[in-house]
Amino acid sequence: MPSDGGSREPEGLAEAVLSGDRAALGRAITLVESTRPDHQAAAQALLAELLPATGASQRVAITGVPGAGKSSLIEILGLRLAEAGHRVAVLAIDPSSALSGGSILGDKTRMQGLAAHPRAFIRPSPSAGTLGGVARRTREAMLLCEAAGHDLIFVETVGVGQSEAAAAEIVDFVLLLLVAGAGDELQGIKRGVLELAELVAVTKADGDNRERARQAARRYRSALRLLPPRDPAWRPPVMAISAETGEGLDELWDAVERHRALTEASGARAARREAQRVGWMWRALEDGLRQRLRAHPAVAARLSALEAEVRAGRLPPTAAAEALLDAALGAQPPSSSEAAKPSG
Amino acid sequence: MPSDGGSREPEGLAEAVLSGDRAALGRAITLVESTRPDHQAAAQALLAELLPATGASQRVAITGVPGAGKSSLIEILGLRLAEAGHRVAVLAIDPSSALSGGSILGDKTRMQGLAAHPRAFIRPSPSAGTLGGVARRTREAMLLCEAAGHDLIFVETVGVGQSEAAAAEIVDFVLLLLVAGAGDELQGIKRGVLELAELVAVTKADGDNRERARQAARRYRSALRLLPPRDPAWRPPVMAISAETGEGLDELWDAVERHRALTEASGARAARREAQRVGWMWRALEDGLRQRLRAHPAVAARLSALEAEVRAGRLPPTAAAEALLDAALGAQPPSSSEAAKPSG
Repeated sequence: MPSDGGSREPEGLAEAVLSGDRAALGRAITLVESTRPDHQAAAQALLAELLPATGASQRVAITGVPGAGKSSLIEILGLRLAEAGHRVAVLAIDPSSALSGGSILGDKTRMQGLAAHPRAFIRPSPSAGTLGGVARRTREAMLLCEAAGHDLIFVETVGVGQSEAAAAEIVDFVLLLLVAGAGDELQGIKRGVLELAELVAVTKADGDNRERARQAARRYRSALRLLPPRDPAWRPPVMAISAETGEGLDELWDAVERHRALTEASGARAARREAQRVGWMWRALEDGLRQRLRAHPAVAARLSALEAEVRAGRLPPTAAAEALLDAALGAQPPSSSEAAKPSG
Repeated sequence: MPSDGGSREPEGLAEAVLSGDRAALGRAITLVESTRPDHQAAAQALLAELLPATGASQRVAITGVPGAGKSSLIEILGLRLAEAGHRVAVLAIDPSSALSGGSILGDKTRMQGLAAHPRAFIRPSPSAGTLGGVARRTREAMLLCEAAGHDLIFVETVGVGQSEAAAAEIVDFVLLLLVAGAGDELQGIKRGVLELAELVAVTKADGDNRERARQAARRYRSALRLLPPRDPAWRPPVMAISAETGEGLDELWDAVERHRALTEASGARAARREAQRVGWMWRALEDGLRQRLRAHPAVAARLSALEAEVRAGRLPPTAAAEALLDAALGAQPPSSSEAAKPSG
């Protein structure tokens, strides 16, 4: 934890991160996660300095409901890849951790082997905040891991719908884990998540459950054929896997690598990352605007009253928005600002 | 077209709309669609005045690719409902009309019977603009139609994906039309659209095509069982229909009415409309912010340069956003504004 509190990053931290010093990486992520204004200033300066050293990793989101086997898959896949020479980092997007009382990845005991590996780095979910805030801090932690030399980043998400969409705005590849239920059970997946996936894996395809998992994979394969793909050049594979027997894991990672090669060659990966960066700028702009609007004395006084009027249908949304913009930014020239005022 | 150009609505227009005067309704919608600041001011005043007379209609979006039979369905369904005493209005969301050279509904010849009916009102798509702008104007035109006494509003969308999402933010019920292709063909539907639908109808289930349409309906019914519903209390029905023979049309409208009764009783309809109104306020706020940021001299000068830096990965998105907010709203107190500055 940095203690000098200056608006520059703590002396030598950038160099230490770049050298692959794990303790320094941990301190840098703590700085990014801090909400103290001086820490935030230092964190932004650090990120700006390290930016040229980022971007070279493969970024994979692992998502699925609790119990789908996310940790087991990351443990076994991460260990294999670390053994093969990769430097693996595991991060999390879990906006619910404050409510549930414990973050996912909160105890590393669920990934004991990987946590102990010298080429792996596991970071629990940042302390709670808005989803946008948590996702932004996870994105910045990912950049720090890349600067520290990690070439594979797994982003674990909690499976509540919105966090998957946020994760998809960070990564190159979304891996959705499902568990086979009986019959047509929905297995708890949320609206829109299936369409975010670059790959769907039905987990726990072992023992008595193996045939059921394979049947579920066939059903989802048929269903996905009826949905339009995100990228016409990539039809998301659906496979049954087992973290216990290892079934399907080679095929799974082959698909990740195949997607990487394909999208690097086509330029789709670079285009996706560009769009993600610009998207993050606009989201940060809008988040910042909302914060400053709520903190703005002239606006804060009116915001909740106007929102209640809109909610009740007594004031047009456009009129409320214009009134708030005028309060925050000053009125437009008379001919158009008139539009902003509610008529009454 | 109003010619006085004042910042109040043209004299007597509100009363004329409320009396059900079709010409007045047409003029009021033209006012809402105008981009002239004085017209916009008058339009907002008019909407604020008419707001208490809005909200009593059933709002249905009809969506699907070109050729899916949207106009044919609206023509036959609209005529039946108008004959049964309803006052039907047809509007459109078509942000592509400037590009394609002609708006959907541009010629009413595709709905000749309905266009001539005394209890129906058909309005071509507003002239082009951003999707958000077109959707906002369509929403406001819908409110005007309600004030004029229309109790059924059909919003036709063009099937490009984004316009369906915008339509879903306006209406109570999304009706997706598909045409049966051979085998597993995707029929041109866009990502995410299937999940927006409250009802899916496979059209042209007549003659040689009848069995194929019914098979397609069965396939989509199976696929939809694997997708999580928007509302756990409403499993979207999938049916085969024919505008030519009338097959399935009674069942289709029964489903719309059943959904209305269900969501009115549960409060889900009121909750959806409330959330839509607040959502529109925030969207209008963000749209307005973007416009004012782009028009703001200090910001406009920096925006494109900063966006290019972010796109290229040379500047963190957060730093760019903070710099733009500072330029627009003035710097925060020193301890936190420091975070906003790029380090270099």
